[in-house]
Amino acid sequence: MADRSTVVRQWDFRWSGVVRKQYKTGGEHFRAITRQTLLGDANDERGLNNLLRYFEIEPGGYSSLERHQHPHMVVVIRGRGRVILGDRVEPIDHLDCVYVAPDTFHQFHATDREPLGFLCVVDRERDRPVLPTAEERARLAENPAVAKLMKSG
Amino acid sequence: MADRSTVVRQWDFRWSGVVRKQYKTGGEHFRAITRQTLLGDANDERGLNNLLRYFEIEPGGYSSLERHQHPHMVVVIRGRGRVILGDRVEPIDHLDCVYVAPDTFHQFHATDREPLGFLCVVDRERDRPVLPTAEERARLAENPAVAKLMKSG
Repeated sequence: MADRSTVVRQWDFRWSGVVRKQYKTGGEHFRAITRQTLLGDANDERGLNNLLRYFEIEPGGYSSLERHQHPHMVVVIRGRGRVILGDRVEPIDHLDCVYVAPDTFHQFHATDREPLGFLCVVDRERDRPVLPTAEERARLAENPAVAKLMKSG
Repeated sequence: MADRSTVVRQWDFRWSGVVRKQYKTGGEHFRAITRQTLLGDANDERGLNNLLRYFEIEPGGYSSLERHQHPHMVVVIRGRGRVILGDRVEPIDHLDCVYVAPDTFHQFHATDREPLGFLCVVDRERDRPVLPTAEERARLAENPAVAKLMKSG
């Protein structure tokens, strides 16, 4: 049977037929995040080599500080925040796009005032994230801006 | 040299360092569209297996009625409109996501009142679009809603 095209409708940052899940289970290296897989999970979407997800970080929350071989494509669609990208910190705002290069430690942070929501495209087949070692954390912290922002378990 | 992560900043539906181009050159089978490649074109983004583009269709405009083997992931980020997806027409609105399945004829239409802008992710390596034959156009037009909306060269 051929794949069927689909329209997944949005309402207030929820999407029709999409389950909102916790970002990850276990660990203390992230805070206050949910995940919705918008395209790529349904049977009819098996033609896609990648997945489209929506992550939302509550005020004051942050994602894991991690790296992996697969790159990320990110587009901010709600609020603003900051991202650690290797040895630097970048502000991110509405519709800014972020390319996270392979093997680059990264961590997204909401502000204290509002949620930060972003689309993220990844390859369907991808390697698992790796958390920084103590040595890697020390190296990242050489930039005071990164040291001030970074959180890790 | 390792790839470098990048942040591509948005302002009024233009992005830093990104050239706005015509959707396609030649042909009369589309109207009033521009294209910006947001991620995947720069040297530093060669880790990506796919491209993130932004298309904007002016009021009254539309994309080509075409099909191809590679699927599309689309997210509406400006305005609203309608899309022909094979044998049906679907309304699309802010942050709705569209999966265009392989080999499905599709055509995006802005309303007459405002531009329709959407993100579109595709594989970097992909087949070329094919326009419908007269026979295929006739088959698509069997649904009156499609017949009323479709434009083809």
